[in-house]
Amino acid sequence: MFNHSNFLGLKNFPRADIQEIIDTAFKFKEVLDRPIKKVPLLKGVTIVNLFFENSTRTRISFELAQKRLSADTVNFSASSSSLKKGESFKDTVQNIEAMKIDAVVMRHPSAGSAKHLTEFIDAKVVNAGDGTHEHPTQAILDMMSIQEKFGKIKDLNIAIVGDISHSRVARSNIYGLVSMGANVTVCGPPNLIPENICDFGVKVSYDIDEVVEWADAINILRIQRERMGIGLIPSNREYRRLFGITSERVHRIKKELVIMHPGPMNRGVEIDSQVADSDQAIILDQVLNGVASRMSILYLLLGVKDKDRDED
Amino acid sequence: MFNHSNFLGLKNFPRADIQEIIDTAFKFKEVLDRPIKKVPLLKGVTIVNLFFENSTRTRISFELAQKRLSADTVNFSASSSSLKKGESFKDTVQNIEAMKIDAVVMRHPSAGSAKHLTEFIDAKVVNAGDGTHEHPTQAILDMMSIQEKFGKIKDLNIAIVGDISHSRVARSNIYGLVSMGANVTVCGPPNLIPENICDFGVKVSYDIDEVVEWADAINILRIQRERMGIGLIPSNREYRRLFGITSERVHRIKKELVIMHPGPMNRGVEIDSQVADSDQAIILDQVLNGVASRMSILYLLLGVKDKDRDED
Amino acid sequence: MFNHSNFLGLKNFPRADIQEIIDTAFKFKEVLDRPIKKVPLLKGVTIVNLFFENSTRTRISFELAQKRLSADTVNFSASSSSLKKGESFKDTVQNIEAMKIDAVVMRHPSAGSAKHLTEFIDAKVVNAGDGTHEHPTQAILDMMSIQEKFGKIKDLNIAIVGDISHSRVARSNIYGLVSMGANVTVCGPPNLIPENICDFGVKVSYDIDEVVEWADAINILRIQRERMGIGLIPSNREYRRLFGITSERVHRIKKELVIMHPGPMNRGVEIDSQVADSDQAIILDQVLNGVASRMSILYLLLGVKDKDRDED
Repeated sequence: MFNHSNFLGLKNFPRADIQEIIDTAFKFKEVLDRPIKKVPLLKGVTIVNLFFENSTRTRISFELAQKRLSADTVNFSASSSSLKKGESFKDTVQNIEAMKIDAVVMRHPSAGSAKHLTEFIDAKVVNAGDGTHEHPTQAILDMMSIQEKFGKIKDLNIAIVGDISHSRVARSNIYGLVSMGANVTVCGPPNLIPENICDFGVKVSYDIDEVVEWADAINILRIQRERMGIGLIPSNREYRRLFGITSERVHRIKKELVIMHPGPMNRGVEIDSQVADSDQAIILDQVLNGVASRMSILYLLLGVKDKDRDED
Repeated sequence: MFNHSNFLGLKNFPRADIQEIIDTAFKFKEVLDRPIKKVPLLKGVTIVNLFFENSTRTRISFELAQKRLSADTVNFSASSSSLKKGESFKDTVQNIEAMKIDAVVMRHPSAGSAKHLTEFIDAKVVNAGDGTHEHPTQAILDMMSIQEKFGKIKDLNIAIVGDISHSRVARSNIYGLVSMGANVTVCGPPNLIPENICDFGVKVSYDIDEVVEWADAINILRIQRERMGIGLIPSNREYRRLFGITSERVHRIKKELVIMHPGPMNRGVEIDSQVADSDQAIILDQVLNGVASRMSILYLLLGVKDKDRDED
Repeated sequence: MFNHSNFLGLKNFPRADIQEIIDTAFKFKEVLDRPIKKVPLLKGVTIVNLFFENSTRTRISFELAQKRLSADTVNFSASSSSLKKGESFKDTVQNIEAMKIDAVVMRHPSAGSAKHLTEFIDAKVVNAGDGTHEHPTQAILDMMSIQEKFGKIKDLNIAIVGDISHSRVARSNIYGLVSMGANVTVCGPPNLIPENICDFGVKVSYDIDEVVEWADAINILRIQRERMGIGLIPSNREYRRLFGITSERVHRIKKELVIMHPGPMNRGVEIDSQVADSDQAIILDQVLNGVASRMSILYLLLGVKDKDRDED
């Protein structure tokens, strides 16, 4: 039975609970195929989306998940907030919670901020990305998409390619995939892979051609343009040549390779357009699974479980 | 029977379908007079308002239309979007659609962008203004307001005054009014009237006094201040003298003249305050009819038609 | 019986109606303790939140109040508005009202703007702060919090400390508290207390230690940083020394003192952290009471009163 007060990250998160989130997400995905894509499960529940960083896709994905659960939703973005007036983070969130908020979905540029938030408020906290730390709902939707494609996660070969050091998507995926029994290899420029990465239970490769040959699915991270040209990544062209998932690379291999990307994509840099738009890509499935995954997580945290009926 | 997948513009749009939108809008207008201004017709339907240009009145008008149809609505403005991160238009909209959006209402500065959008997504598209091309929901509400005032559109004399060349409001009105059988005259500075305008089935006049004498209703376009002083429009004062609908001009004529303006108004430039606030003006009726028209269009595109019941 | 068309301020507002708002707010506060924090009382009612000044807490508080009454709510902030295009305030609000809005909640930097708005529109107006004039919903929630703590308002000693001259919170509290029979003393730097303040039925003190000794509750105003260093307030440190509610000041007194602050707080300036976080502080209760108070006001203005049933 799912028994968490918050959803902060996948480090040490029990395997059975990951599976329960994914299984519940598949049930919600069926709702999204109905003409009326809405269930009354969180009616009267209030959720605040607290975004201290710009994000279209994650914010809209959460907002849709909330509305389709019939929750009331309030958006709060840092730019229009009292923070400008010098109010502390603690005061801001305690004030929001005092209005009888049931949950806060937060994106924040500081690693650890989601955990920090739980010290100040009693409302449930969902981490929608905290700095370079974790982005656990992204990892859930990625694993759901893998299970949808392959029928399982265990024993699959999954590669994660890009700037591993600065990626909360990579970190949450690693925790989750290793816990679910997948074989994980990370690949990217040597200066963008943490030295102690093997402690996480993953392998490292610096040879992208070896990796695409090995993998059942490859999760291609977005290259952050702001890291270009400051010694970390040489140039778009050079990155593409060394680590880009190009049309040539994908066609060279014999077996099936499933292509994933958390978006937004830099087409022509970390991924070629022909690859992104091919039948092998499940990038748009990931987007829909994101809504279903977030419905699942919010429902498991906030829904009233009818235990008696379950025990019949 | 209304059988369109999108509502992009009034060019070549069938007359019977324009009439059906207007007739349905009048039914929705009755809803707006009830204490509970809401019908459950689009319950569970999700609509995204995708605004790449600032707009208060159009965005709020659509949002209210959606809420009064009980649709779920998500607002997306370009300034907070992934577009800043360099994501392509196509990727942005395909990602939004992947979340099982039923319709997208889009305003965009590029002519043809609404049509372009339909090539990327399966969701219904409503054009809320695409550059200088079309603004068809504005034309529907204008025609609805004319029919409300006169009981008909056919054979009426309708004048459109202002910068015809750059006005999407003018263009959509011309297509719609000509299709509905009205006599249309456009009037404005010669350099702001397209050379081939007569091909659209309208007449041209450069004499505003002749036009107000001729017209049953006059639709006064907003003068874009950003076009002032760059050779296109000499000055506020000069524009008012030559083409402004002044109190003197309106009082000089003997017959009834109905005053329309899509807003926002430059009082004292293209329209005098005494004219805007007079009983002849139906400017605020246009605003309310805008909500009813948008309810009508969204319902006709997205509502479940109960054909069996219709055939009884 | 509550019979107001608008809620603009507490000057000359009848005592019985203040009491009715507070009593109704306590009933709504019970709703906020239920799992489903929502009542259908304003279903189908449309309310526009028209904010010409940034505000997180007030805007979210109103939005939650509206959603918990099941009203439809549209947010409008000045930055994205037609005002940028030079449209007049009157035209903007008349256009919004023309869409069949039932009420407008407005925050605006000009004193008197809420009253001004009622001259242009028929929709109910709720003043969410108009310049340095009034902020009546804040005063209602403050008085509700006092009544909740003490069981009454009459005959209590209430102090208001800070920049009285520029505070709409102070002004509305003074009107309300005097009307309800409390003894009110204002305290602050002499140049920030209006000369004619005694005409309002309050006493003045410049000695904060005397005031904390006298008061049953103290309402601590936020110091506006923008008024620092322009001759009005010398410095944070100096303000704290002279008028700050410091830990030492509060511990020195023998009796109970209830601590209030409308937020956002400048911790370490007008209030010490130990005071703000102490058991004496009801600052977070004020926040929740704000939602209940706003539900009460909106319901009393907009709800359908079932008089027949009341008379049974």
